[in-house]
Amino acid sequence: MLFRWRMGCSIWSSMPKKIVIIGAGAAGLTAASTARECDPEAEIEVFTEDEHIAYSPCAVIYVIEGKIQDFDSIIMHDPRFYEERRNILVHTKTKVIGVDTDRKSVKLADGATRTYDAMVLATGGKMWVPPIEGSELDGVFSIKSVSDGKAIQEAIKGTDSVLIVGAGVIGLMMAIAVRNLGKQALVVEMLPTVIPRIMDEDMAALVQSHCEEKGIRFVMNAPIEAIKGKGKVESIRAGGKEYPCQMVIMATGVRANLELPNMMGLEIGPLGAVRVSATLQPYKKGRLVKDVYAAGDMIMCQSAVALGPTMSQLGSSAVRQGRVAGINVSGGYSTYPGALSPWVTYLGELQAAGTGISKALADYFGIKIVEGKAVGLTKARYYPGGKSITTKIIADKETHRIIGSQIVAGEDVTGRINWLTGAILKGVTVEEFVNSFENAYCPPTSMVKDVVNQAAEVLMAQFEAERKRTRAL
Amino acid sequence: MLFRWRMGCSIWSSMPKKIVIIGAGAAGLTAASTARECDPEAEIEVFTEDEHIAYSPCAVIYVIEGKIQDFDSIIMHDPRFYEERRNILVHTKTKVIGVDTDRKSVKLADGATRTYDAMVLATGGKMWVPPIEGSELDGVFSIKSVSDGKAIQEAIKGTDSVLIVGAGVIGLMMAIAVRNLGKQALVVEMLPTVIPRIMDEDMAALVQSHCEEKGIRFVMNAPIEAIKGKGKVESIRAGGKEYPCQMVIMATGVRANLELPNMMGLEIGPLGAVRVSATLQPYKKGRLVKDVYAAGDMIMCQSAVALGPTMSQLGSSAVRQGRVAGINVSGGYSTYPGALSPWVTYLGELQAAGTGISKALADYFGIKIVEGKAVGLTKARYYPGGKSITTKIIADKETHRIIGSQIVAGEDVTGRINWLTGAILKGVTVEEFVNSFENAYCPPTSMVKDVVNQAAEVLMAQFEAERKRTRAL
Repeated sequence: MLFRWRMGCSIWSSMPKKIVIIGAGAAGLTAASTARECDPEAEIEVFTEDEHIAYSPCAVIYVIEGKIQDFDSIIMHDPRFYEERRNILVHTKTKVIGVDTDRKSVKLADGATRTYDAMVLATGGKMWVPPIEGSELDGVFSIKSVSDGKAIQEAIKGTDSVLIVGAGVIGLMMAIAVRNLGKQALVVEMLPTVIPRIMDEDMAALVQSHCEEKGIRFVMNAPIEAIKGKGKVESIRAGGKEYPCQMVIMATGVRANLELPNMMGLEIGPLGAVRVSATLQPYKKGRLVKDVYAAGDMIMCQSAVALGPTMSQLGSSAVRQGRVAGINVSGGYSTYPGALSPWVTYLGELQAAGTGISKALADYFGIKIVEGKAVGLTKARYYPGGKSITTKIIADKETHRIIGSQIVAGEDVTGRINWLTGAILKGVTVEEFVNSFENAYCPPTSMVKDVVNQAAEVLMAQFEAERKRTRAL
Repeated sequence: MLFRWRMGCSIWSSMPKKIVIIGAGAAGLTAASTARECDPEAEIEVFTEDEHIAYSPCAVIYVIEGKIQDFDSIIMHDPRFYEERRNILVHTKTKVIGVDTDRKSVKLADGATRTYDAMVLATGGKMWVPPIEGSELDGVFSIKSVSDGKAIQEAIKGTDSVLIVGAGVIGLMMAIAVRNLGKQALVVEMLPTVIPRIMDEDMAALVQSHCEEKGIRFVMNAPIEAIKGKGKVESIRAGGKEYPCQMVIMATGVRANLELPNMMGLEIGPLGAVRVSATLQPYKKGRLVKDVYAAGDMIMCQSAVALGPTMSQLGSSAVRQGRVAGINVSGGYSTYPGALSPWVTYLGELQAAGTGISKALADYFGIKIVEGKAVGLTKARYYPGGKSITTKIIADKETHRIIGSQIVAGEDVTGRINWLTGAILKGVTVEEFVNSFENAYCPPTSMVKDVVNQAAEVLMAQFEAERKRTRAL
């Protein structure tokens, strides 16, 4: 009775808020932990289909490779940690099969239901496998979860060559891992360059030739057409040719997991992911869905530099979005700004990174660009051990604002790409960068004029040359 | 005749411009090279007292230590390179003893004169040695030029313990070098902490204890009072106590070289250096001096974050200032903005860096601050080989703008400090940093939420706690 009275008078009551979170990856668990910080009283429950929680999918490959000891090491926390330390109940192997946003309840696979006051959808992405013949054969794997990783780790033992489909970051990381295990690696890619779309041709060429030096072979411009074999994979057909193989790993991209969003009738954006407001609320029939938030690989967000949509399927983005969802789901107010999605990867002895707009993305958004590139060293020229570093900066042809950058180097790439990400976010022109953006210098950690500053000067000179040409006409 | 006619009609003439640059360090030579790029016709002459040109003073210590093979390696270019490749005449061992800004001429030590159309003063700084008894004794060195370095390299051979006066960056680098040569190192510092003024007590403690682990001994709070010995140094007295020693290296700070500025009657600022406009022109009797520019360690500039003067005696600043002076001296227009002076150093296995305002500088400028600090790793927690990293971010208590940062870590400090420098320059508040400043992530190069972002969150939480306290009152 007291309970019903309280329910009806929730505005006066001290009933704890019921928060439900679906998904236990970076977005879901950050949302849960943030909600707990904001509201010490709330009842917080997390549901995930997965057996494992709180791990970084990109770490799975490092375990296969043997760089990290075992899969347990990459799992930061188990459900008990969340229960004992944060008073958050995490239900693993528990599939949510429906959400009723009118009655504010979720339905579990076993038929049970849970009501919520506010909820977060964070069911992430799924490895997309092209709909071709043979993808169900033995010896065909995709790489995302710990379970995928364990299956690959087992299968790879009896194999001496692995064929990888897709030359994106994950495909290349996988190929490097295969080589480091002493096996042959062949990468088949439908597009002409590695890390397509986010890395320009010239920068991608540096990455590809490093991978080739590590013994990886590439077949480019070869879309996969079929996987063949009797029970077990024996070959693949791609770009009209046949490639025999013992084992295939699909690294063909991650797409938003739309199972629940579709069931819920949520609006799906042009990039095939859940469209959300700045507060990370999804839309249904043109209206915000009340008390529902979405975060992580399943959502489409807005670009911070171009007027249009973008995807930011990165662990670091999931954590940021999870924080915003966690604040909002517990009654606070926070917004997720436009995204630049800075990324970085380590392939053999080479680091590659990017931020903002690449050439391909500029084309997609209809933006004209001017670029400047500088090649230098990560240490002073005379200091031993410096590694080659190539930095490209891309500016908007009209406004001269820096809108993108890519860096390839033997070391020290991450801080530099974050530096440029900040400049892009703040709308810095290349002239302002050259004029005001000081770099810290000591011989063992940079050149006196850092390669980033050098690239900005080269880019500014392009604009000056352009101005002179125009004046001369 | 033709010549005189041309002189009188310079507005119509194609007479090449005469540019004189005094000083051949980072500022002077960058000015010369930039002037050459801007004006392919100008006559450009550079005068320096020094025997060597175009070297990084901070590299001198690495040669003493043996990390760099020899002094020749750190000299990037010789006068012939400048003459043949850039058509710039560099006169070494040539002292300028006077400048007549009315007649626009400089006087050399041998009595010759040179007229100029425009000139750059870039005579740098001098190691400041406190005016105490015994500083002229044998075995007492200061450390700045290649000649200093050669003298120390020679003297240190017969020595098994070295006493260093001053625990700033140069003093600590020197002490590490001494230890790496297998000798005893004792550092005597008048202030209570190492890297005083620019590094806060808590961060400086991390640096000092790392140096102690490397076997360096410290005597703090001990101003040097006298150097004693008969002909050759035998001991020093500092803070009332006597310390026997075989060799003393003074690393007691660099002050602007004011010999020429004083002779020319230029205005000297409150920090004891030449006051300049944004165009890097000095002042005389309250007015800009026409066609004269000054750059590098000899000038005082304005802080980009506090309303007041600052010094930026860094190689990277000298290069930036040299560029501005080079553009202006050749008839172009460029300004040097306020400086944040990001710095970084590598001591043993530890990197330390800072940017903007420290606690001591905040006190100097009368600014109230709030700070946030985070300790983490340079790699994901589960990725092997991560090194400890401590990041502090300082914000203005009133505006919440980030105004300073210090980082101490085993690696990867430079990019992070540049990232924060950019944010400070653009007036970013800690709330905006938390909300918008994305970090690139992969397990071998950072945590999923970089330690910089973590420190910003800790700092923001201070402001939130403060707000709650105020509301509760």
